Amino acid sequence: MRIAVDATGGDVGAGVIVPGAVAGARASGVALALVGPTAVIQAELAKIDTSSLDISVVEAPDTIEMTEHPAQAVRAKPNSSIVVAIKDVKVGNSAAMVSAGHSGAVMAAALFSLGRVKGIDRPAIASTIPTLRGQTLVLDLGAVTDPKPQHLVQFALMAQVYAQRILGLTNPSIGLLSNGEEPSKGNLFVQQVYPLLLGTAGINFAGNIDGKDVPGGTVDIVVTDGFTGNVALKVAEGTATLMTEMLRKELTATLPRKLAALFLRSGFRQVRRRLDYSETGGAPLLGVDGTVVISHGRSNETAILNAIKAAKRAVEVDLPGGIREAVAATVAKTADSAPDAPADVRQATEIGRGVDR
Amino acid sequence: MRIAVDATGGDVGAGVIVPGAVAGARASGVALALVGPTAVIQAELAKIDTSSLDISVVEAPDTIEMTEHPAQAVRAKPNSSIVVAIKDVKVGNSAAMVSAGHSGAVMAAALFSLGRVKGIDRPAIASTIPTLRGQTLVLDLGAVTDPKPQHLVQFALMAQVYAQRILGLTNPSIGLLSNGEEPSKGNLFVQQVYPLLLGTAGINFAGNIDGKDVPGGTVDIVVTDGFTGNVALKVAEGTATLMTEMLRKELTATLPRKLAALFLRSGFRQVRRRLDYSETGGAPLLGVDGTVVISHGRSNETAILNAIKAAKRAVEVDLPGGIREAVAATVAKTADSAPDAPADVRQATEIGRGVDR
Repeated sequence: MRIAVDATGGDVGAGVIVPGAVAGARASGVALALVGPTAVIQAELAKIDTSSLDISVVEAPDTIEMTEHPAQAVRAKPNSSIVVAIKDVKVGNSAAMVSAGHSGAVMAAALFSLGRVKGIDRPAIASTIPTLRGQTLVLDLGAVTDPKPQHLVQFALMAQVYAQRILGLTNPSIGLLSNGEEPSKGNLFVQQVYPLLLGTAGINFAGNIDGKDVPGGTVDIVVTDGFTGNVALKVAEGTATLMTEMLRKELTATLPRKLAALFLRSGFRQVRRRLDYSETGGAPLLGVDGTVVISHGRSNETAILNAIKAAKRAVEVDLPGGIREAVAATVAKTADSAPDAPADVRQATEIGRGVDR
Repeated sequence: MRIAVDATGGDVGAGVIVPGAVAGARASGVALALVGPTAVIQAELAKIDTSSLDISVVEAPDTIEMTEHPAQAVRAKPNSSIVVAIKDVKVGNSAAMVSAGHSGAVMAAALFSLGRVKGIDRPAIASTIPTLRGQTLVLDLGAVTDPKPQHLVQFALMAQVYAQRILGLTNPSIGLLSNGEEPSKGNLFVQQVYPLLLGTAGINFAGNIDGKDVPGGTVDIVVTDGFTGNVALKVAEGTATLMTEMLRKELTATLPRKLAALFLRSGFRQVRRRLDYSETGGAPLLGVDGTVVISHGRSNETAILNAIKAAKRAVEVDLPGGIREAVAATVAKTADSAPDAPADVRQATEIGRGVDR
């Protein structure tokens, strides 16, 4: 199996991505296509041991910058590392693509080139995050900022396939992120989604959850729109950083404390590692017809290594195929048993109305 | 100055609220009207020292439960502690009201009885949260889950008055919570709000911020809709809990670690206290024509004490009056200089569109 890696994308550059990808290739036993400016990649490869690995370099002189408009950049830069790496998958030279670059551009390139899985209108970015009970899969994290209610049903189905095939959960519970647990809670959008999820056959819908339940890990899967999901993930990251900084300051305030803290260093490191959201390594783009893994924009070598592993695993379990089957099965099962959504929505909306609208 | 306290609302009950309120009265030098079932309140008062304090008990036999519909409950229970306490403010017996009860019901009762400040369509719940640089005021935290774009301009003005009069900031910076910092980022709602804030005279608009910036403290004030604000606050709370639990487990894994951790106990306690979101004590209901402070639903005695202090301070600086002036001044200043909002919105929306819509 060969994996195409965008070697220059993102805030980190080839100096991190190339050694991370090579380590990933060694750990997973896959071949690599490193995509980017050949000279830059060769210079990085010269610094590390690549013996007995199957590594090719695919020339792509351009890079899409983080500030560019996704769709426009993809159209304007056919020779960018992102576009060329995706094409390597499209033509069948590679089985999957990994990028730490502009996630919007990766999404655009994947959509233009690989297309969507039948039955999926909007692909989503999913990632597992650490929780009190282990980990929870959250989506969407920013691909679709203004989804329609039915898109969240598709998110739920895609996440279920991921949880079953990658995380090994038989019947994963699915929570809808809201401003409270009661069915009446939510903004108008959530109140439209709730009855749709309730009426979807073959999923284990656990109802609304609130923000505390995300790090609390009360469900296996959290579905939300890409705007809220992005805010939630980044607030969690930022809070972990805040607490780390507060502890650092507090626990080094006096010499005796410093010494005791030094003694606990490995324990702190362990917790920081578990809470390092980039360590999860890769967020698969669910719903595109091919395997694409987005690594954290500020990825380190370990994150790239983990993204390679995640991509290999996604190919092995055929995520796109699984999603295609799940959607088809659910459409068939739900057809007869679906509740009268508009009426339900009206009712839920009525119940949930506060005094302030 | 007398402050009316809902003595039975919330998940905690009179056993926490009464001693907390009495401690607050002692610390702030205010009189109290404790509102609730007289027998229950008297029983709690009997357990504590109330010497030299001016404390009255106001009978209110009913309690609004956390699960009730806000507006319906307020209408159905005129003798509930929340409704009676608000009325005590309305008739001028008390200068402010504090409740740890059903925040939606407090909002409803305040709106029905006290009304809104002129120029404010939707009151909001604001609270300061701890950040890397100190604290940041965030609103709305759940009062208005589906605001209109212009409501966020009102939120910004109200928060500015709060930051100036309560936090002592001269020219507080205001960030719009989004899924990225670039002006093109945001869901359709945020893209409509952005040009409105940009065109509001007399505020220090710092543009979009992302979720990391909330605990990062990059701005003094964060404005957002009540749905997103509620999710963000609870994710932050939950993440702090998650990290605390992880540390507890990791740092007590071995006996030597346990001993070292014991040594650092006061340091940990310090950080936990700073990150305890209930410790901030009270979220003022901004935009109602009177002073109402909502305490955390799971408030402890310290939180109630702090809420009393916050209420006293809000009365002293006349928050409602300040908001009235700010709105009037801004309407006057903005009238001529306002940009053509609809065109701007269309443009921003166009720029921000991803590939996926």
